[in-house]
Amino acid sequence: MNSFSQLVKQFEDRFVGALPFPGQPSNLYDPCRYLLQLGGKRIRPVLCLMGNELFGEVNQDAWHAAAAIELFHNFTLIHDDIMDKAPLRRGNPTIHAKYGMTAGILCGDITCIYAYQYISQVKMELPLVLKTFNRIAVEVCEGQQLDMDFESRNDVTIDEYIHMITLKTSVLLAGSLKIGAMLGGATEGNADKLYEFGKNLGIAFQLQDDYLDAFGASDKLGKQQGGDIKANKKTYLLLKAWETASAHQRAGITDWLQKDTHDKVPAMLSLFNETGSDTACREAVNYYSQKAFDSLEDVAVTAKRKQPLYELATYLLQREK
Amino acid sequence: MNSFSQLVKQFEDRFVGALPFPGQPSNLYDPCRYLLQLGGKRIRPVLCLMGNELFGEVNQDAWHAAAAIELFHNFTLIHDDIMDKAPLRRGNPTIHAKYGMTAGILCGDITCIYAYQYISQVKMELPLVLKTFNRIAVEVCEGQQLDMDFESRNDVTIDEYIHMITLKTSVLLAGSLKIGAMLGGATEGNADKLYEFGKNLGIAFQLQDDYLDAFGASDKLGKQQGGDIKANKKTYLLLKAWETASAHQRAGITDWLQKDTHDKVPAMLSLFNETGSDTACREAVNYYSQKAFDSLEDVAVTAKRKQPLYELATYLLQREK
Repeated sequence: MNSFSQLVKQFEDRFVGALPFPGQPSNLYDPCRYLLQLGGKRIRPVLCLMGNELFGEVNQDAWHAAAAIELFHNFTLIHDDIMDKAPLRRGNPTIHAKYGMTAGILCGDITCIYAYQYISQVKMELPLVLKTFNRIAVEVCEGQQLDMDFESRNDVTIDEYIHMITLKTSVLLAGSLKIGAMLGGATEGNADKLYEFGKNLGIAFQLQDDYLDAFGASDKLGKQQGGDIKANKKTYLLLKAWETASAHQRAGITDWLQKDTHDKVPAMLSLFNETGSDTACREAVNYYSQKAFDSLEDVAVTAKRKQPLYELATYLLQREK
Repeated sequence: MNSFSQLVKQFEDRFVGALPFPGQPSNLYDPCRYLLQLGGKRIRPVLCLMGNELFGEVNQDAWHAAAAIELFHNFTLIHDDIMDKAPLRRGNPTIHAKYGMTAGILCGDITCIYAYQYISQVKMELPLVLKTFNRIAVEVCEGQQLDMDFESRNDVTIDEYIHMITLKTSVLLAGSLKIGAMLGGATEGNADKLYEFGKNLGIAFQLQDDYLDAFGASDKLGKQQGGDIKANKKTYLLLKAWETASAHQRAGITDWLQKDTHDKVPAMLSLFNETGSDTACREAVNYYSQKAFDSLEDVAVTAKRKQPLYELATYLLQREK
């Protein structure tokens, strides 16, 4: 069994070290290479490899699927960064910031098509794998749309928020595991339990991301600290704060949402503290983490084989198991 | 054998009349429906159906492929219109003009993914069909990139231009025919000849499009007349005019390229006339048309079966066969 870091290393060597993009047109492919080589945690492709290794040695189909998943993820990042007007990604300028908007659109497009080029090379159960991949791809886009829809709504509930992040973030983590497992010959039951594990892990992970965007340190995030607050993003923290706030606190939140001054971030952080939404967010992280671990427990392979997945989940959630 | 208009009608009834998009999120799917229901000539999906019908009755795989091709084409239109800042498409506002830029990006993305959802449903030779589809998709994006690269270059040759439009426009027409033929059980030789037919037809078609954008009537085009001239687009007309212009004429072209006044279009049209680039463009249309018809001639099926393709090509090129 390989550890997370061993699989990251192998994935980097096999895929990132030998990216499939040709030299020309360089204005198309240079930005694609730029983003993929900036790093990133490679969680999604490695989840696919780990899902595969649960049932045997990592096979060629899983390597193809892992590459497809990493490419698809990067495609969504490129376009989401344009839509979110994000200046930084992985601690460096986003593609549209560095190369311009049209490069951002087209590099995203070609990265998506290369994702399909990889997933199309899968030999085992290709129609079923494509069906799963396509459903995930649709859901990720729907999640992004809901995320944007929420920007102009003032009545977003916590349930709607969880639904949105499930689509936008979790189904890709879940699907990575499931596709890896399918390609390893998993039963449908085991593949579905892994999907549930990944889905809840993804929700926990995103809620933690919300937390860290507000309360984490900028140099570790690789992006602007408080970016969500500055953008008035309706994160779990903000929605929960609004839900539990007193009339006075709501007035404070409303007030700060209309401002764009440098003291906006610390002021909102104080409001999150006062309303207890920071604690609620961490509790929600624990709730979904536990659901995730329960599903993993149910997967019918030996505990030893599941060890790398436990370790990865624990690492991702900075959670003492 | 069905005629072009019969196949258009059938395609409209089967696919456009029952689009696969769900109701929600409506901000994602309404714009997709909007564009697909605006019409368009449906040339690409019908070429796929015609390529299929050359070898027998149109089968289910061909219907799936035709839908995939129409969706893919619409995806490229949506994103190209953003990059080209085009206000009109099919005589109506473009998606980004009507719904905003982020809608344009995300609707394009989901339309591309739905294209893959359809092509994934093909039963016959799925890996080979996907490989063909993916190669075309990559080339279309590369063509769009070259098109944008040309905007900032002053040394684009006619050969480079033909290469660009081959990628951006022709390979999708060619690939539509080829995939339809493959799904009809065509030999590799016949499928390749149909590809050549479609490729040259596409080049001729694009060169004619250049011509009509400059010399056609706005109400028939469904887009701004002289849009290419206003955008300083390096079309065949402009490149050829530059190539053959006298020093005096070159000065005139250079001068007008820097202006943005209402008399720019008629002035450039005069320069195209004076340099003979309008005639050269029409001759090039005829040259590539002839190559296309020669390839179609070589396809080893009875002349009668090829009749709808001849008629379509003739109609597209407004050419007396």
